[in-house]
Amino acid sequence: MTGSKEQVYAPGHHPSQTKHHEWRTAENSAAHLIPHLQRLGRERPHLRVLDVGAGSGTITASLAKYLPPDGTILGTDISDDILARAREHAAAQGPDVARRVAFQRASVYELPFPDGAFDVVHAHQVLCHLASPADAVREMARVCAPGGVVALREADLRMWCAWPALDGLERFQRLMADVLVANGGQAEGGRRLLSWVLEAGAERGDVEVGFGTWCYSAPEDRRAWGGSMINRLRTGQMRDKGIELGIVTEEGIEEMIKAWEEWIGADDATLGIVNGEVIWKKK
Amino acid sequence: MTGSKEQVYAPGHHPSQTKHHEWRTAENSAAHLIPHLQRLGRERPHLRVLDVGAGSGTITASLAKYLPPDGTILGTDISDDILARAREHAAAQGPDVARRVAFQRASVYELPFPDGAFDVVHAHQVLCHLASPADAVREMARVCAPGGVVALREADLRMWCAWPALDGLERFQRLMADVLVANGGQAEGGRRLLSWVLEAGAERGDVEVGFGTWCYSAPEDRRAWGGSMINRLRTGQMRDKGIELGIVTEEGIEEMIKAWEEWIGADDATLGIVNGEVIWKKK
Repeated sequence: MTGSKEQVYAPGHHPSQTKHHEWRTAENSAAHLIPHLQRLGRERPHLRVLDVGAGSGTITASLAKYLPPDGTILGTDISDDILARAREHAAAQGPDVARRVAFQRASVYELPFPDGAFDVVHAHQVLCHLASPADAVREMARVCAPGGVVALREADLRMWCAWPALDGLERFQRLMADVLVANGGQAEGGRRLLSWVLEAGAERGDVEVGFGTWCYSAPEDRRAWGGSMINRLRTGQMRDKGIELGIVTEEGIEEMIKAWEEWIGADDATLGIVNGEVIWKKK
Repeated sequence: MTGSKEQVYAPGHHPSQTKHHEWRTAENSAAHLIPHLQRLGRERPHLRVLDVGAGSGTITASLAKYLPPDGTILGTDISDDILARAREHAAAQGPDVARRVAFQRASVYELPFPDGAFDVVHAHQVLCHLASPADAVREMARVCAPGGVVALREADLRMWCAWPALDGLERFQRLMADVLVANGGQAEGGRRLLSWVLEAGAERGDVEVGFGTWCYSAPEDRRAWGGSMINRLRTGQMRDKGIELGIVTEEGIEEMIKAWEEWIGADDATLGIVNGEVIWKKK
């Protein structure tokens, strides 16, 4: 084990951070889990799902659609504020979703549940913020019942596939990765996910590995994603931390904002972001 | 237009090159096209599909399964030798595939077919070998009928997401991209695919863009992929060209082979390769 196990969500929950998060759904961010939810749901009518680090809960509420009629999903997070937002979002999805979804404050390092309390334990973009990701996976596996699955997905921040080639975008990508690492997180989570799962005690034969992507290219996606990145540069924790660490200047940030504006305006613009995906079938 | 339009397949068809190619199927390499094939097949019982640069034809034969009963698929390539292999492969898939599949020699720059001769025109890892990819797309679009689709998929060779972090693998990746460019090809095809399609005359609103991945991590996939890369280093065109250009030495190649052997043996190894995917719906 390396680093601290104190759990802090360094990026914070400023609107500049949460806006993109709320674009996330089961379909665009947890597609690798859906067939397993459906398979287990047929076998286990009271399927119990835990969504660790649920944040504003859009994936949590969206996963609820794939549960059997008596299935339930519990989202956890370390922030009461973001959980209030998650409860509001779930309620707004209508009674069929709302009755199956609940939220509770908890740290991923010490989940307040007995061994095997859930059939599915899911986390999305959580381990990349932790100093000890393998410890978190071990704790998630502890609360996963035999025959169930632990499902993980983490971005690989060194893997942005962007066009047009703009210096400002490349510098932005490095800034984001460097700030994540300075905050005690992991910039290469996508490719390292399997290594953490094995370190947490999985046998290789029980783990399915893949990569999934996010793609931003259509005009409305460019405006939403690029706009969210510009907001982070103007007001987010990344800006403050980058300046504090001396790895970016106010001028450098202005250049990155200009690059994002150019990218948003380019009809041939694409951006692919690579995420590692793992399904650990618990014995 | 830049560069020569003489069409040469620089990597050649040595077994070190074709072995991996024959692992490719519709499911792992043309998943973005399958729903469009099925949709168009319901509307057009005599669906006509053209697979440009079909090589050893494993994707061609595999796509045949998704055609309507009276649908046909024609694969083209510039090499008679590889087409002989493709015919053999298609025949081995049984009569239901064999009767729908044919192959013909043709250059992507001058397809010997009238305008609108096909409902679906597909190319996989073809444009990255060309000096004038937008010209090839324009020619593919010419032979695509109104209401049909042009479907493209190209790897982005700068985007390999590999673990463990091994210097030899990083140098291998750069060698592969540099040799491709030295041969007149395109190393960043994945991210540039949309720009070529727009240059070929598409309107942005008619084009769907995404990214798909290949993942090598399970022991058998590591042996197959890593072994194929080692073969290329020992006997392939990449080795000869790299040495001829002075961008790699015999010693450097031995270090890359050692890195691949280490990667094949590592239980926590993963490798994600990113491919750009485009569907152009022809008006």
